[in-house]
Amino acid sequence: MDFKTEFNNKVNTVNTYLEKYLENKTDVPATILESMRYSLFAGGKRIRPVLMMASYELFEDNTDVVMPFACALEMIHTYSLIHDDLPAMDNSDLRRGRKTNHIVFGEAIAVLAGDALLNYAFETMLSSAVANSEKTIRAAAYMATCSGIGGMIGGQVIDILSENKVIDETTMQELHTKKTGALIRSGAICGAICAGADEGKIKLLEEYALNLGLAFQIKDDILDVEGDVSKLGKPTGGDTELCKNTYVSLYGIDRAKEMLEESTNKAKALLGEFGKKASFLIDFTDYLLKRDN
Amino acid sequence: MDFKTEFNNKVNTVNTYLEKYLENKTDVPATILESMRYSLFAGGKRIRPVLMMASYELFEDNTDVVMPFACALEMIHTYSLIHDDLPAMDNSDLRRGRKTNHIVFGEAIAVLAGDALLNYAFETMLSSAVANSEKTIRAAAYMATCSGIGGMIGGQVIDILSENKVIDETTMQELHTKKTGALIRSGAICGAICAGADEGKIKLLEEYALNLGLAFQIKDDILDVEGDVSKLGKPTGGDTELCKNTYVSLYGIDRAKEMLEESTNKAKALLGEFGKKASFLIDFTDYLLKRDN
Repeated sequence: MDFKTEFNNKVNTVNTYLEKYLENKTDVPATILESMRYSLFAGGKRIRPVLMMASYELFEDNTDVVMPFACALEMIHTYSLIHDDLPAMDNSDLRRGRKTNHIVFGEAIAVLAGDALLNYAFETMLSSAVANSEKTIRAAAYMATCSGIGGMIGGQVIDILSENKVIDETTMQELHTKKTGALIRSGAICGAICAGADEGKIKLLEEYALNLGLAFQIKDDILDVEGDVSKLGKPTGGDTELCKNTYVSLYGIDRAKEMLEESTNKAKALLGEFGKKASFLIDFTDYLLKRDN
Repeated sequence: MDFKTEFNNKVNTVNTYLEKYLENKTDVPATILESMRYSLFAGGKRIRPVLMMASYELFEDNTDVVMPFACALEMIHTYSLIHDDLPAMDNSDLRRGRKTNHIVFGEAIAVLAGDALLNYAFETMLSSAVANSEKTIRAAAYMATCSGIGGMIGGQVIDILSENKVIDETTMQELHTKKTGALIRSGAICGAICAGADEGKIKLLEEYALNLGLAFQIKDDILDVEGDVSKLGKPTGGDTELCKNTYVSLYGIDRAKEMLEESTNKAKALLGEFGKKASFLIDFTDYLLKRDN
């Protein structure tokens, strides 16, 4: 199977599970589900859950076990976008070419839809953990740490506090390792934990994820400067406008492009250990390097 | 030990554990911890964690097992208050006699501090679940359901959608059973689950918690009309101002007071099954009826 077909198959699997988890419930106000679904099915690339499935498949075949965790990761990613777009945060009206959640549903429901997605991520993982073995609990705990104050939320705080300030290299590294990197990392690691990978392999995947996350963020920063608005689905130049610290603002566009290549190559090299089993993940790593949105 | 002493001892235990969980961490931005701590240590009554400890002690003595869950419940309760107070929601400047979180830290950090507390609740419970047995996972899963779209968040959505509308009795029951009731219920039930209570006892405690939650909400509504501002730490009349549906607005103050008595008595009667072991919980139920804030 070629990369594109396998990628699309995985995306379809993610969407099917998300549909199942987010189908109509009679005991839930329709508005909150509608608002959650609006952002969850807004054309996200499903990069994080696909990464988790792929890391799982380095060790095991039957992906049923990992799907609650893959979907939870996408819910956490989506909630962070809804809250990020709020007037008090990045104040964005547009995402993926569509109106942002608070523009459509109002700020109050947007705050709650974000809260609801974060909470529902844990509901989904924990329902699975109750039915399954100890591995799944370890995965849920790992994800909680990645999405929390020492991970994504911590990164968002550094981001907000650094606006209109020039920050040093170390702070910026920490910002992105946490803000974007932590969820990427939980994708690579929770898949492996669910599949029962040994500690050595998990360490190796953590280093892979660190480089992948770095490449991902640099690419994001480059797209904000050089991207095609019609493909991005949002205006470019937002980082400059908000005086955000980016790899482009700190190192310049040429050095940023070099760093993107370097970290992508380092990530791919680390997968060598897995031989042919890692061919999807290697293509996936390249795909993130070349994406246009 | 008299009720007041035992209650204060339990509150001190909760605070000691919360202090431990929220102590300075070098890998976390100081601002987010400060903002989380500001609201977490703002003079909350600790009703929900105390309830959980008490329900645990109906079955087991050593409360160490239940503390991560009791503290997680207080974190979830606190996050919901921070988000509730935001300009887009209830727009409150004052809570417990102090400026609300977003007034002190700004809206962006207040949104993130709420998110962080919700996430940290799961981090705390899951760290404990990884180290402990299956019971604790079941408790974490129960809490996730109570604090989610079928519980607290669902209730908040109904609340927001019902502003400036007259709602019927059934909708109001659902609103409060979820918005306030679900966390109260998780207090009563997670304690019992952590202690390994059997299904029959859990069902009984669910009915107790349903009546306790109802009493709690009616008392809240009465205080918003008749409360002493200096004791409440916030202005009265807020419900009327926001055209909120309350037990007082629906049934009138006299009938609301009767209903408060009825549900309190029903809750206490249900505890009869536990004999002398339930004496703290019976006093606790009375304490909620008589509280002035």
